[in-house]
Order: sequence, then structure tokens, then C-alpha cells
Amino acid sequence: MFELSRDSTVPLVDQVADRITSLVEHGQLPAGARLPSIRKLAKLVGASPFTVVDAYDRLVARGVIESRAGRGFFVCNRRLATPLLAIEAMTDPGSDALALARLSLTYSSDVIAAGSGFLPENWLLEAVPGAVLNRISRGRRPQAWMQCPPQGLLELREQIAARLVQNGIAAGAANIVTTFGASQAFDLLGRILFAPGDAVLVEDPGYFVLFEQLRGQHVNLIPIPRTPTGPDLNALEAACRAHRPRAFFTQTLLHNPTGSNTEPAVSHRVLSLAEQFGMAVIEDDVYGDLHAGPAVRLAQIDGLRHVIYVSSFTKLIGPALRVGYVAADPAIISRLVERKVLSVLSHSALLESFVAEVLDSGRYRKHLETLRGRLSRMRRDALQALTGAGITFENTQQGEGMFLWGKLPDTIDLDELVRGAREQSILLAKGTLFSPSRGCRQWLRFNVAHSTAPPLIRYLKSAA
Amino acid sequence: MFELSRDSTVPLVDQVADRITSLVEHGQLPAGARLPSIRKLAKLVGASPFTVVDAYDRLVARGVIESRAGRGFFVCNRRLATPLLAIEAMTDPGSDALALARLSLTYSSDVIAAGSGFLPENWLLEAVPGAVLNRISRGRRPQAWMQCPPQGLLELREQIAARLVQNGIAAGAANIVTTFGASQAFDLLGRILFAPGDAVLVEDPGYFVLFEQLRGQHVNLIPIPRTPTGPDLNALEAACRAHRPRAFFTQTLLHNPTGSNTEPAVSHRVLSLAEQFGMAVIEDDVYGDLHAGPAVRLAQIDGLRHVIYVSSFTKLIGPALRVGYVAADPAIISRLVERKVLSVLSHSALLESFVAEVLDSGRYRKHLETLRGRLSRMRRDALQALTGAGITFENTQQGEGMFLWGKLPDTIDLDELVRGAREQSILLAKGTLFSPSRGCRQWLRFNVAHSTAPPLIRYLKSAA
Repeated sequence: MFELSRDSTVPLVDQVADRITSLVEHGQLPAGARLPSIRKLAKLVGASPFTVVDAYDRLVARGVIESRAGRGFFVCNRRLATPLLAIEAMTDPGSDALALARLSLTYSSDVIAAGSGFLPENWLLEAVPGAVLNRISRGRRPQAWMQCPPQGLLELREQIAARLVQNGIAAGAANIVTTFGASQAFDLLGRILFAPGDAVLVEDPGYFVLFEQLRGQHVNLIPIPRTPTGPDLNALEAACRAHRPRAFFTQTLLHNPTGSNTEPAVSHRVLSLAEQFGMAVIEDDVYGDLHAGPAVRLAQIDGLRHVIYVSSFTKLIGPALRVGYVAADPAIISRLVERKVLSVLSHSALLESFVAEVLDSGRYRKHLETLRGRLSRMRRDALQALTGAGITFENTQQGEGMFLWGKLPDTIDLDELVRGAREQSILLAKGTLFSPSRGCRQWLRFNVAHSTAPPLIRYLKSAA
Repeated sequence: MFELSRDSTVPLVDQVADRITSLVEHGQLPAGARLPSIRKLAKLVGASPFTVVDAYDRLVARGVIESRAGRGFFVCNRRLATPLLAIEAMTDPGSDALALARLSLTYSSDVIAAGSGFLPENWLLEAVPGAVLNRISRGRRPQAWMQCPPQGLLELREQIAARLVQNGIAAGAANIVTTFGASQAFDLLGRILFAPGDAVLVEDPGYFVLFEQLRGQHVNLIPIPRTPTGPDLNALEAACRAHRPRAFFTQTLLHNPTGSNTEPAVSHRVLSLAEQFGMAVIEDDVYGDLHAGPAVRLAQIDGLRHVIYVSSFTKLIGPALRVGYVAADPAIISRLVERKVLSVLSHSALLESFVAEVLDSGRYRKHLETLRGRLSRMRRDALQALTGAGITFENTQQGEGMFLWGKLPDTIDLDELVRGAREQSILLAKGTLFSPSRGCRQWLRFNVAHSTAPPLIRYLKSAA
């Protein structure tokens, strides 16, 4: 009937299933034809009967063959119903920001993802090798398969609290709630803290998906310019006086997109304004673990009085895990848990157990060291290559994190540049996306892990 | 120093880490004490140096010991900072419904979960054995570790569409968006479809978490009585005329909590009203796969014109997976995808790959057969035992699904009964929770998989 390859990396089960599918598709096994019995096919192709049972099960599940009780397996008739529409939904993503988020999430390995916010998969996979899966499948973490408590697995919350304590932030498991990435943290915070029309301060430039989330909640978004030493304090104070804002979203360390860190003196002043004007400060620290050496976070100075601290393991362990968290005063945590139950019921204990195992095994710490080393080397190379292509950078001595924020000559039309790049399978992230005031027209954000590819550099040189 | 047990099921790594932790906790290894070198400890306890390296890594990650460059490993000083508050958040869950949801998610194996909405873990684990994990960890599904497209993995959406087509519902992958369980589907639908004050119809009794979700969105919740043959058509028509509702949420098959199925003639009438009054019908089919034999769903009659179909694998494959979905017209799917990106960015490709593998391997089909057989036996036993305890049931001939809806004598105070049960670690779900009009005072919902336990039956008998 067909021969199996024993040297192939494709398991025999898949080979059998694929070969039969191919015979059906090419008409050698027409609709209604009877397949060999399990025993007979096993003998014919020299496989174990278990292999054939597994392959037939898969073909039944895929609708290629069907089992008729007591009579054997038969090729299915073609399906009668056809899909309503063959196109994918959301071909028009509604906004440039959503388009970039979507492209970042769906790009294939053929795309040069210079504008992406994610690290390469092969960098991340190292943190979650087979050994982690094995410990979970061998039952070392039985809670992985059960319902997840709405606040998050206690073990994971204790691990997170211990890490916060190491960073000087006094927190216990009761101060933590887990979320589906930092994105859900922002969504839930917006839903418990803001009413439509409330004034909310954000950094300009800053994280574009957050702006779309807040716009979706109909708040009054007020941009505060970001300087190389942190948020512009004069603008912040003026906005506090003028608008009495409910909250200020800020990234203290490795700010996205500029890569800058807020100086401790600036952080102190931000917290004084929060105290004076009764404003919450939401500190987004998703990149903080890439910062080597001592750092002063707002939550460390403030002790979770005005600061609501948000972070995630998604960026640095892997996008498939979707585990983020909020650390805050227990009264806020309690309202977040309630809102979380009403939004998604609970997180996945399996994903939280993965993260707990990666943390507990000490892999995370080693993984961060590896990531920092790689990013530092890639950053140096990317700076050199991009500078050679006519792009200028400030703060080049601050050699950390995932992003470079580069300025292009005024003569270049950035919309044109980004469109042309996409035609060559190069994903670029233009500065206006990051600016709630639609500024930063001549800027691009580069992900250093994806920005040394020769076709990218050639394209930028040709455009200059 | 200590001896390791080679016969234990506890891996050597964990034994070494546990023993050292114990020595630290009991003061035999005081703060600052130096640990034996890796080579030395390996020799002392007769383990491989790799085992000791792994154990030391874990102890460093847990903050028990620390590594000092070039000098070895030392017991850490005790942490200086203490948690702000030792209590868990949300001790007051705000409402009875949230309290039950929360208890269902956190109960331990000591609790008799008669009121829970979940199947026992050991029933569910069979659908996701080590073989599934092995195929994923052996790289048969590389997409499992990458970003998940916002609409959901194409393979999984195609599998879901094929299952819908088998149920007579014409749908393709473009008609599907995945969600974190049915809960997120309801949350996203509420956010794109309703404005505060909109009239929304729900079944009375019905799914209590949905009511809380809708109340959180400030809609005008209008209860439609549920009869043994489906929603009360007179009440439905009157509500349509009086309120011009935006949508009607209904469960056609194995309705929660009553277990009833809507008759096809009633479904036709529901759809006529939807057509006449321009109302969306949101069909919640999370239990439908437990229904054996032919069934007529609203989406089958309607072809996704007025019907928005919601289902999930969470209830039947496992709570750790959190994979649900919506099937609807592509215009609605497009808006849901946009709202999903703004809420959680995307799902977890790992969890979606698990479900894809369970479906593709044919395990799901076999698992459903096993579940149906078990539920049918447990249902018969639970009916007999609960009837013996003085509880009466209607529709006992409809022997399917997870729930029994039982009535208690009018002399019993249900609040008292539920409180007393909790003191004996018995979780009961009282009828008023399921009733948006606060009716069903003498009813309880029983999960047949948890309702034959002798202490439960004894307790109910003693209360009668």
C-alpha cells in the first residue's frame, strides 16, 4: 500500500495518517472505499497495530474516514456544508496600532520583525525546555490540571512576592493577582478605576496598545512628554492641576519605545505629585528584569500606597504563557479579582504552573543573564548597522533592553517607508503609533533582536 | 549529612532541596553557613553532581541559599521586608454568586462539591494524558510556543468549524474566534453589543455568573421563565414587545441548572421573534457535547444570522485549558477580535495546541463517550440517593448531562441548609443564585458527579 520511513523524524503515526490522506485526496481511495483492517494494514506497512489504531483515530477526528460499527473503516463522503465565508475576519484592523499588534502576533519566520515587541522564539524556548514539561506531565505539579484560584496559584504569588521583595518592594502573596499578560492587567485596572470622561495621563511616546485600551474605555487621554530622565515634571504638574487625573501610567525602567530609565529624583517628584493630587501611579515594569544592576522602581519608594505595579513573564519567558500580574494594595487586588472572575473566571493553572516551575528551577535567573548578554551584543551590532543606514540615536550609552529609538532624516516619508517595507516582508514600527499626540513623525522603534538583517539595512539605505 | 531514598517516587533533586530546606528551617544550617561544594555533597549523599546543581539552583531561586561568586553557596539571611498583609484578598466576595464561583474554583479534595459546576479532575485528566504533552514537547506542534494569532490558531478554528458542520451548523474558520473559556466570550460579547441601560433577556433560572457579568455592564436584565420545553414563549414575546431587547441568552441543550432541552418547535418560535424584533440570540452550548444522539440547536436552524453561538472545551476537557469560542457572522467576529486584542492581546498558543491535539488524536470523541456513560450511571445513583433524602425531581426521564435540579420541602430554610453544609465541607448551590428574579427558593442544583457521597446524603436526611 505504501512504505514507511524509519529514519524520518516524522512519527510513524503521522506518516500513516498523511499517506492515507494523500491517497484519499488523489482519488486512489474514493469516498465510501473500505480501508484495510487494523491488523492487516499493520502487517502491510510493517507497523504496530497500536500505530494504526492511533492513525485511524486521527483520521476519524479529522473527518477523512469514518468507523461503521462492526464493519470497519470507510472513506468519508465529502462534506456537504461549505463555510459561510473563506476570508479571515479583521482584514481591516481599524487602526494602525491594532494592525501592528496583530502583525506582531501573526508574523511568520519569513518576516523581518524589526518593529515587533517580541523576542525571537528560539531565545525564549530555552527557558521552557522539555524538562519543564516532563516535570508537569510526571505529576510533580498536580495542581497544573485543576481549576485555578481566581487570585492565582498561591505558590506562584509567593514566588512573585519574593522576587518583588528582592527588588525592595514590600509585598506578600495577598498583594498579587495574576492576569493574562500585562494587557489584561491594564484592561481590568481601567475597568475598576475609571469612568468615561475621567482624565488619565500617559507617556508620550509610550505603549500604543495601552492607548487603544484606554480609548476603548472612553477616558480623556492626556499625554505627558517623556524625556531621557523620565516623565517631564513640569508637564506632569500642569496636567495634575488642570485635569485632576485619576491615574498616570509610566514605565520607570527600559521605557518602551525610548529605552530610557527614570532617574530616582524624578521618581520621588512623581510620587509627591501623586500624593498631592490623589492620583494613582500605574508602574508598567514588563521590561524591568532586563535591567542589570541596581534600579529604583516607583513601587520601591512608595511601598504600594499610590503605586499599582504591573509586570509579566510573557515578554521574557514566552508569549505562549500569557502570565502577567498586578501588585497593589489588597483593597485594589480584591476589586481586580472580582472583575477578573467576571471577565475570564480564572487563569489557567497549567500556564501558572509552567511559570512556577521555571522560577522554582532557577532557570529564569539564568535565562535572564543569557538574554541580557544576547541583547547587549545584538544592540551593539544593530546600532552600528542602523547608524550606517542613516538613522540617528540619542542615549546610545544606555546599552540595555530590547528597543532602539531612532530618528530618520526629515526628507523621508515614514508612511511610505513603512508601506514599502511591508511589501518586502519587513515589519517596521513608526513613531506616530507610540505618540498619543501624533508626534514623533520621523522616528522608528527597532527591536534589536530583529534589526541586523542585511535586507533591512539595505532597504533603509536605499530609502535614505 | 542526610540520606536519600532511591525507592521514593520523589525525585532525588526534590529530596536534596527538601532536606536542605529542613536543615535551614530547624537551625542546623544557620544564616550565613557555607554549604558543601557541589562535588562534595554529591559524594556525601551518593547523588550525581547534576542532581546537586539542580537542587542548589532551586534553593537559590527560592531564596533559601545564595551563590557568592568564586566562594560557593551560603544560607541566606532571613528576609528583611515582611508582607503588607497576610490575609487573602476577597474574603468578602461581594455576592453569593461570586462566592459560589470562587468556592468552585478553590475547593480542595476534602470538600464534597455537590454544588460545583465542574467534573472531577480524574475524569478530565484522561483526555490529556502524558502522550499529549509528549507530542507537544517533542516539537510536533512548534506553534505551541509562539504568539497566538488574535483570532485563534487556524488549525483549531478549522477543527471547531468541522465539528459545527457535523452538527449541521454551516461555519468555517472565519466564523470562529477563540476565547479564554465561555466566560470571556460573554464578557466580550457584552462589551461590543450592549450600552448601559440596554434591555437584555436571560433565562430564569439560568447561569448565575452570566447574570453578574451583565449586571457589571449595567444592562437592564429581564428574566424569561424556563419551562421543561425551553423558554416560556409568551413571556418572551411580551418582553420583546415591552423592552425591544438587544439580545436573549439561552441554553438549548442540557440547560443549566434544570437539565432540560428546548424542543425544536420552541426554537423555531424563538428565532421568529428574533427576526421580528431584530434581537440577537446568544446560544450557550457549553454542555451540548454531553447530549447523545440527534439534537437541534438554534444555530443549526438559523445559520448564524441572528444566532451567536458560544461553547467551550473547559468544562469537558479540563479547567486548566480555558479554551472557549464564539461562532458568528464574520462582522461580529471582527469586532470580537478587536475587543479581544484590547483585553488580553491574544490567547495562549500552548493551550490552543493542547485542545487541537486532543481533537486531532480522536481522544475527545472517545472521552465524550466515557463521560456520558459515567454521568449516566452517577445520575441514576444520585437520583436514587437524593430522592431517599426527601428531594423531589421533575423530568427524571431526561437522563443526561451534569446537573440535577431538585426541590426541597417548604419547611426547610435553604440559607440555613447551605450554611450548615459548608461547615461540614459540603458545597451546595442554592436555587436563588440561578434566578435573576430571586425565585427558586426551595431548589438546589446538584452536580451528579459529586452527589452520591454518604456524608452529603446523611446531612440532607438529617436536615429534612
